[in-house]
Amino acid sequence: MELLVPLDPQSRMPLYEQIYRFIREEIRRGNLRAGERLPSSRILSENLKVSRSTVQMAYDQMLAEGYMETVPYKGCFVADTQSLTGFGEARNSIGEGSASSGEKDAGEPAFDGKVDFSPRGIDLENFPFGIWRKVNRDILVDDNRELFGPGDPKGEMDLREAIRSYLHSARGVSCSADQIIVGAGSQYLLMLLSRVLGDNHKIAMENPTYKQAYRVLKGQGYPVCPVDMDKFGMQPDLLEECGADIAYIMPSHQYPTGIVMPVKRRQELLGWALKKEGRYLIEDDYDSEFRYKGMPVPALQGMDKAGRVIYMGTFSKSIAPAIRIGFLVLPDTLLKVYEEKASFYASTVSRIDQKALYQFLEKGYYERHLNRMRAIYKGKHDALLGALKSLEDRFWIQGEYAGLHILLTPKKGMEEEKLVSLAAKEGVKVYGLSSCFIHNEHNQYPPTLVLGYATLTKEEIEEGISLLNKAWKDV
Amino acid sequence: MELLVPLDPQSRMPLYEQIYRFIREEIRRGNLRAGERLPSSRILSENLKVSRSTVQMAYDQMLAEGYMETVPYKGCFVADTQSLTGFGEARNSIGEGSASSGEKDAGEPAFDGKVDFSPRGIDLENFPFGIWRKVNRDILVDDNRELFGPGDPKGEMDLREAIRSYLHSARGVSCSADQIIVGAGSQYLLMLLSRVLGDNHKIAMENPTYKQAYRVLKGQGYPVCPVDMDKFGMQPDLLEECGADIAYIMPSHQYPTGIVMPVKRRQELLGWALKKEGRYLIEDDYDSEFRYKGMPVPALQGMDKAGRVIYMGTFSKSIAPAIRIGFLVLPDTLLKVYEEKASFYASTVSRIDQKALYQFLEKGYYERHLNRMRAIYKGKHDALLGALKSLEDRFWIQGEYAGLHILLTPKKGMEEEKLVSLAAKEGVKVYGLSSCFIHNEHNQYPPTLVLGYATLTKEEIEEGISLLNKAWKDV
Repeated sequence: MELLVPLDPQSRMPLYEQIYRFIREEIRRGNLRAGERLPSSRILSENLKVSRSTVQMAYDQMLAEGYMETVPYKGCFVADTQSLTGFGEARNSIGEGSASSGEKDAGEPAFDGKVDFSPRGIDLENFPFGIWRKVNRDILVDDNRELFGPGDPKGEMDLREAIRSYLHSARGVSCSADQIIVGAGSQYLLMLLSRVLGDNHKIAMENPTYKQAYRVLKGQGYPVCPVDMDKFGMQPDLLEECGADIAYIMPSHQYPTGIVMPVKRRQELLGWALKKEGRYLIEDDYDSEFRYKGMPVPALQGMDKAGRVIYMGTFSKSIAPAIRIGFLVLPDTLLKVYEEKASFYASTVSRIDQKALYQFLEKGYYERHLNRMRAIYKGKHDALLGALKSLEDRFWIQGEYAGLHILLTPKKGMEEEKLVSLAAKEGVKVYGLSSCFIHNEHNQYPPTLVLGYATLTKEEIEEGISLLNKAWKDV
Repeated sequence: MELLVPLDPQSRMPLYEQIYRFIREEIRRGNLRAGERLPSSRILSENLKVSRSTVQMAYDQMLAEGYMETVPYKGCFVADTQSLTGFGEARNSIGEGSASSGEKDAGEPAFDGKVDFSPRGIDLENFPFGIWRKVNRDILVDDNRELFGPGDPKGEMDLREAIRSYLHSARGVSCSADQIIVGAGSQYLLMLLSRVLGDNHKIAMENPTYKQAYRVLKGQGYPVCPVDMDKFGMQPDLLEECGADIAYIMPSHQYPTGIVMPVKRRQELLGWALKKEGRYLIEDDYDSEFRYKGMPVPALQGMDKAGRVIYMGTFSKSIAPAIRIGFLVLPDTLLKVYEEKASFYASTVSRIDQKALYQFLEKGYYERHLNRMRAIYKGKHDALLGALKSLEDRFWIQGEYAGLHILLTPKKGMEEEKLVSLAAKEGVKVYGLSSCFIHNEHNQYPPTLVLGYATLTKEEIEEGISLLNKAWKDV
């Protein structure tokens, strides 16, 4: 078949995105039907007079989001987003992230080796210090005296409006500023959310998951049931079985596995939520800003027409952990409960900091900063993947193309502990995936290592992998 | 008169805001003077070719902020903002705070009368803006890059050390910096504390008490038992009877009664705590900085040799609610539990703000600021007591000499509601003590009013009491 994609080279929208959007729209409208073969990237690129990599990027995006599937030796096909049973190549999009707010684990000893592949932390060398200083200076003027008084419990209105606008354009989140509650980090926001939800809920979480969120929810007294994932994410039948009424998920980029949940699975989980009154999905969109191949996958919240998704985001990854600003987007039903039961909690974020972030967003600094960081992280990511070629005979590499870490799985199944200690002997710190499991009996994963690279330079990454190559020569 | 408001329909600023800002500026510059009549909203809307509701919104804003007043059947006039210094911006905070941290009560209507004796809020006119700007500027330099990374969950060590030193010298609190946990306001710190204490406690609170704390503790699922006070504070025999194992008290200056607990009662409550394993006193020392007669009463914590007192403090009253920094001092037994069970909660306060506060404390600015505010508040306090002489024939005055509010009790026992509504008719807002009761059956108090004065000028205080004298002439 031939695809006539109308391209506008003058547009600010990249060509690959124009292609992706056009095909997605054709699928949504039913002009392209499930099972229909799509032209190969080579043929489409010739037809459209664009580079093959441009088409490939559009295709990768569609694969990642589950609109398309590839069959080896046969080609690319439109996926069945209504009743599909498998997403052959969706695993290609498996990406990685790191701890969602960069918290230090208490009692963690200081590192004194050579290279630390910590999945926590971010690149601070490139923080726009001058601009941050400038926006703060501009705020701390006498005219802003009223900023020192008590503020809106939900957060400053202008900041919430700027977050709404960003979420709408960058993440496809559909909400009003009224639904947004700003707070000091995701842990506090989960505590606040639990006061809105009330007791007597059972919460399902992906296994493995983001351990800090697990601890907070357990700490609030909720029974938490771990739900295993397949390659598309949390399994709906297991979710239904476990009897939970709330599910905490990271569809855009699961931590730590890096799974990007395809559209079909998102629909299934929304379907689960709709099945009974009072069911909710908590969507933690912690590091959706960083994706090196294709566009960011839109948030699940944008697909939810029934108000069953509670959206959570943070600026800890994209600006700095020290900023301590995150936010909740509550559906209308819960917003009402919040107003009645929890709006007496004063905002935990200083109004001055809120104003600084507002300026940072409003004046376009945030967008520029993100673009810059994406390029910097991509450079590090590419350096890591390049260096890892030396380990490919002994390890499977997963979770690339997104977030700030990747996964390494030894082909011969050597134990995590052994790999970590061999690496330590060469002065390199790596981390076991097993620390993210919240129920060991559910451990269906082979030994796997999590390698973060955000805080390292390219040179350190290369040195680290070279040392690992030596440490693991007999793996 | 005619007002030529230059409007820019292309601006992103709403028209009503442009009108409001223009008129406010004209008043500030003295181009519009006190008593000058403003055009009616109908006429101004015709002149400016905007809708009448647009003008009305601008006028409502000016009324709310005290730049304008309306006289029935006469029209709108420029208010006298000279004799009402602080009526403009500081008014923004009136009626929006709460006892110890300035939280806004949801649904509380904006005040549009003349004088608001809100017990919430603080004097912001005298906030040392220049110094705060300077310490922030000094921190936001490139050398402090590491400040943008994740910090200590308990708070920055140097800040905790400075707080320890202040608490030791000013409040007689005996602790190490290690025992101090910094957090975003007293509500959050109570949530965190409840995670340290765990479930299955029964909490005793003074009746009446600080309602926000009550709501947080109830929200955490604890049964709360109200315990009546005599003139020395919470009664130990009633505390023993009620079966609680934790008691939340404000010995230095009970809110709202203003009772300062004498040493003997403190010893009795410590005795209660020592009687059984696992009993604790939570000492909320929310406004201990302000005392106008005699020396500050040292904290109960300093008398405790057995580690049964959990101390809480805040900078919301002494610096500004917007700073959002408070702290807990845990006894050693609970510190251990914290390290095990709750140290994974990242700090809720930005490291930059912590550093700014540290500089403010360390360089002596805090002490100077406190001394200055004590003098300012004492001036207001004395003005209030002086003016209240005119009411002494009809009211008992209590709770003076400390804090930022006093109590008025009608000698003939007229109902709170009636007193509040009579005052409102004269444009004065006063508050009933009854809103602080957490158990109405325990209400042993006569009708009483709470008059805060922190946000008012001396002139406003005098005007307010003069109006009250008129309002309550037959009480």
